Amino acid sequence: MELSLSELAALVGGQFVTTPSAQSVIRGFAAITDADEGDVTFYADPRYLPALRKSRAAAVLVPLDFDQAVPPVAIRTANPRASFDSLVECYASKPVPYAPGIHPTAVIGEGVELAEAVSIQPYAVIEAGARIGARTVIGAHAFVGRDARVGEDSQLYARVTLGERCIVGNRVIIHPGTVIGSDGFGFEMVNGRHVKIPQIGIVQIDDDVEIGANVTVDRARFGRTWIQEGTKIDNLVQIAHNVVVGKHCVLVAQVGISGSTRLGQYVTLAGQVGVVGHIQIGDQAVVGAQGGVSKTLAPKELYQGSPAVPAREYRVQMAHLRRLELLMERVKRLEQEVDSKSKSSPPPT
Amino acid sequence: MELSLSELAALVGGQFVTTPSAQSVIRGFAAITDADEGDVTFYADPRYLPALRKSRAAAVLVPLDFDQAVPPVAIRTANPRASFDSLVECYASKPVPYAPGIHPTAVIGEGVELAEAVSIQPYAVIEAGARIGARTVIGAHAFVGRDARVGEDSQLYARVTLGERCIVGNRVIIHPGTVIGSDGFGFEMVNGRHVKIPQIGIVQIDDDVEIGANVTVDRARFGRTWIQEGTKIDNLVQIAHNVVVGKHCVLVAQVGISGSTRLGQYVTLAGQVGVVGHIQIGDQAVVGAQGGVSKTLAPKELYQGSPAVPAREYRVQMAHLRRLELLMERVKRLEQEVDSKSKSSPPPT
Amino acid sequence: MELSLSELAALVGGQFVTTPSAQSVIRGFAAITDADEGDVTFYADPRYLPALRKSRAAAVLVPLDFDQAVPPVAIRTANPRASFDSLVECYASKPVPYAPGIHPTAVIGEGVELAEAVSIQPYAVIEAGARIGARTVIGAHAFVGRDARVGEDSQLYARVTLGERCIVGNRVIIHPGTVIGSDGFGFEMVNGRHVKIPQIGIVQIDDDVEIGANVTVDRARFGRTWIQEGTKIDNLVQIAHNVVVGKHCVLVAQVGISGSTRLGQYVTLAGQVGVVGHIQIGDQAVVGAQGGVSKTLAPKELYQGSPAVPAREYRVQMAHLRRLELLMERVKRLEQEVDSKSKSSPPPT
Repeated sequence: MELSLSELAALVGGQFVTTPSAQSVIRGFAAITDADEGDVTFYADPRYLPALRKSRAAAVLVPLDFDQAVPPVAIRTANPRASFDSLVECYASKPVPYAPGIHPTAVIGEGVELAEAVSIQPYAVIEAGARIGARTVIGAHAFVGRDARVGEDSQLYARVTLGERCIVGNRVIIHPGTVIGSDGFGFEMVNGRHVKIPQIGIVQIDDDVEIGANVTVDRARFGRTWIQEGTKIDNLVQIAHNVVVGKHCVLVAQVGISGSTRLGQYVTLAGQVGVVGHIQIGDQAVVGAQGGVSKTLAPKELYQGSPAVPAREYRVQMAHLRRLELLMERVKRLEQEVDSKSKSSPPPT
Repeated sequence: MELSLSELAALVGGQFVTTPSAQSVIRGFAAITDADEGDVTFYADPRYLPALRKSRAAAVLVPLDFDQAVPPVAIRTANPRASFDSLVECYASKPVPYAPGIHPTAVIGEGVELAEAVSIQPYAVIEAGARIGARTVIGAHAFVGRDARVGEDSQLYARVTLGERCIVGNRVIIHPGTVIGSDGFGFEMVNGRHVKIPQIGIVQIDDDVEIGANVTVDRARFGRTWIQEGTKIDNLVQIAHNVVVGKHCVLVAQVGISGSTRLGQYVTLAGQVGVVGHIQIGDQAVVGAQGGVSKTLAPKELYQGSPAVPAREYRVQMAHLRRLELLMERVKRLEQEVDSKSKSSPPPT
Repeated sequence: MELSLSELAALVGGQFVTTPSAQSVIRGFAAITDADEGDVTFYADPRYLPALRKSRAAAVLVPLDFDQAVPPVAIRTANPRASFDSLVECYASKPVPYAPGIHPTAVIGEGVELAEAVSIQPYAVIEAGARIGARTVIGAHAFVGRDARVGEDSQLYARVTLGERCIVGNRVIIHPGTVIGSDGFGFEMVNGRHVKIPQIGIVQIDDDVEIGANVTVDRARFGRTWIQEGTKIDNLVQIAHNVVVGKHCVLVAQVGISGSTRLGQYVTLAGQVGVVGHIQIGDQAVVGAQGGVSKTLAPKELYQGSPAVPAREYRVQMAHLRRLELLMERVKRLEQEVDSKSKSSPPPT
């Protein structure tokens, strides 16, 4: 891409805030905080005004009422974010799609069913009885276990492992290195040794789920570990056996959920949150980063801290914790005053 | 599996609490909280009574003294859990064992010793000088480094990496994506740059250890990082160089242990616990979820919090933290009372 | 290696503290706390004297002024650590380097450029248009995406995934299982569903960076996620889209950094630290283990806790938290005293 400033303004149907003096050439896209010379960016959130004032971008798309002087050439447009997105859509380099076909190095087991237009990449291993839906991509070095099923239009990136009998729906994206269907972590103590409890259930992942890189989702003790429709899971998340994650949840990186816990719909767990086993988290509940959830949480509430408590309570605790030193001094002063009075007052009669 | 309710009762030698009216067919197994129509479940722990009252299971195995009315058809048996387990053992789908043999795509280096009945899966790479014991399975895309050793009856799942010279015992299970023998994280600062300290030791994993998916165990600076007999490690755990984990420990998901720390026997670290380097954790010590261990811990004690303290102390801290607001108010009231007295009392003479 | 004690002393130019009575043979190297019979170790830090007193090592290199009686045979030398390091350098087993050459099983796409003396290991997949610099090693089962670039003298271990268009510099080491260039975690809510925001940027990793095992580094929304020169990253770390990690930083295991955050130079994040998105961390700032960083941090300061605060403040908070019980009692006593005075004093007139 190479665009002059006037071409850029024309493309977004925008107007210059002030006529540009320099003749910059636009070569890339960037967020305000990342932008370098030659980049176009956009400004939609006043929190970024300080960043925009220091930005090295060549041009910035701004709202119609924007009237600040900033280093980039500013172009007014009704919806800067949408304009920027359509620019990106038109000009940015896009992922190269994987062409349909089965690479000759793929190892395809007996009775495997491959629907039309699947793309099976080099060194993929698909074990006996597995079924892959139409237009789905199985990445290089991916492993699909015996009798596993993947739906249509899904993408398993390089090195994804899908254990035997596990089920993946349609339009599911799974990033590299993720393991679906490892054994649940279950043992019982017999004569001083941990004896393995067989983990014979499966993992079921419903339509439109996206799962990040190097995530682990264990298979159920029996029955299923279940990620429901539309849920999005970030990198390095751990989901234990028999967990149910409801529809349209968001689990940020490094979250861990212990066995048999159930999340409702639209639950958000921020980064590094840990959740104990055998509890429920209500619909639309949100847990702040590094929260430690040790009991069932109500719907629609924001929780923080470890152990996690309602956010208001957490803020009060933290505020008081910060003021503890002052409190200590106040108590000391009270003790001195009370003590001095005892000495000065006549003893009680 | 398809069983009628009477067949089910006969199989476990059990008796109906009340004669079933419907003629359900049993098709699967599930925990109470997971069970759906067509599942049999079991009830052994009163904590699950509320869940059982809402359960959609077709049938539930209950203790002999159980007399509650619950939605599933209840069948009394002396040991519901054991009866359930043997049902599962007989009827549930079991993992298909890997047949012995060396897949033609496996790359086997010079001087590799493969004992009888090993199973080497597609695209496994076993480098020169490695030795694999009898009946051990090396999964698809697994990598066994130069001169590494794996004992008998062990299973390295797909995509396990075992670094050069590392040693794995008998009956060890390692789940997909786990990396054994990456370099320890050691650098020294020289003229403003971090210079790598060679990590030339190994990892030794003793008999009957199980390690989850996407775990990392670093090789020692020199000597060995050592996971002792019978220890069980969950997914996404980090074990740094020169750590020693004693026998029969349990490390739950996302635990991290820093360099040269030593765990005794039967230590339990709950999920997301972090442990600093160069300390000891005594036999049978337990650290609660998200605990942060910053110094040596005594045996047999339960610790919680970050920094981790004995559980009693932690509970007191948390209780007081919750009551801080009240304390603040009490101090304020005291100040007012003392203040009002100062004003009202005659000055000391 | 087999060395007698006199050979060992001669090699390091050292002198026995007392003439050894036994004739031990030295076969290995170990830290004081790990050492076993037959090992030589070194003593350079008084913190390890208690460990040395219990050490089972055959020999220990000690400073010239060392005069303690310890179980290992002690050999005085001007710089025990340096002497030990050169012993290790001479005698310890070293990683076997990968010979140059392209394994016949490697899948090399169209237009791939391989510079002189590269080593491409079995089952590596290098997609169309990628470029690999001189003497670089691409490990077994590694994946290099379309148009990606790796510099000279770098090593991608087994199973590393480098996404399309990503850029890796010279002398970079990436350990097994690490995923560079997975999609950033970005969605917007449209009619109750999370709709994927395309992640079309790249990851750029500069010279002399080392990255541990099973790490994840997401590609930028647009522009780049950027790990600058000399930075060292431990295992299981998560780096989100558009993060910039400055030069010579140290990120210990299981750290997580959220989107668009920028670290300065020489920043240290200890194990399990979490950092929110869109903030800055100043040069040389240090965050203690399990810290939770929720806002921009000043340079050169040490921070601890979650939420992270300056270390002095944290220590005061923790000290007061431990003394809360005492404070509660002091307030109770004050209340009783004030109350008893109220009763005993005449009412204010």
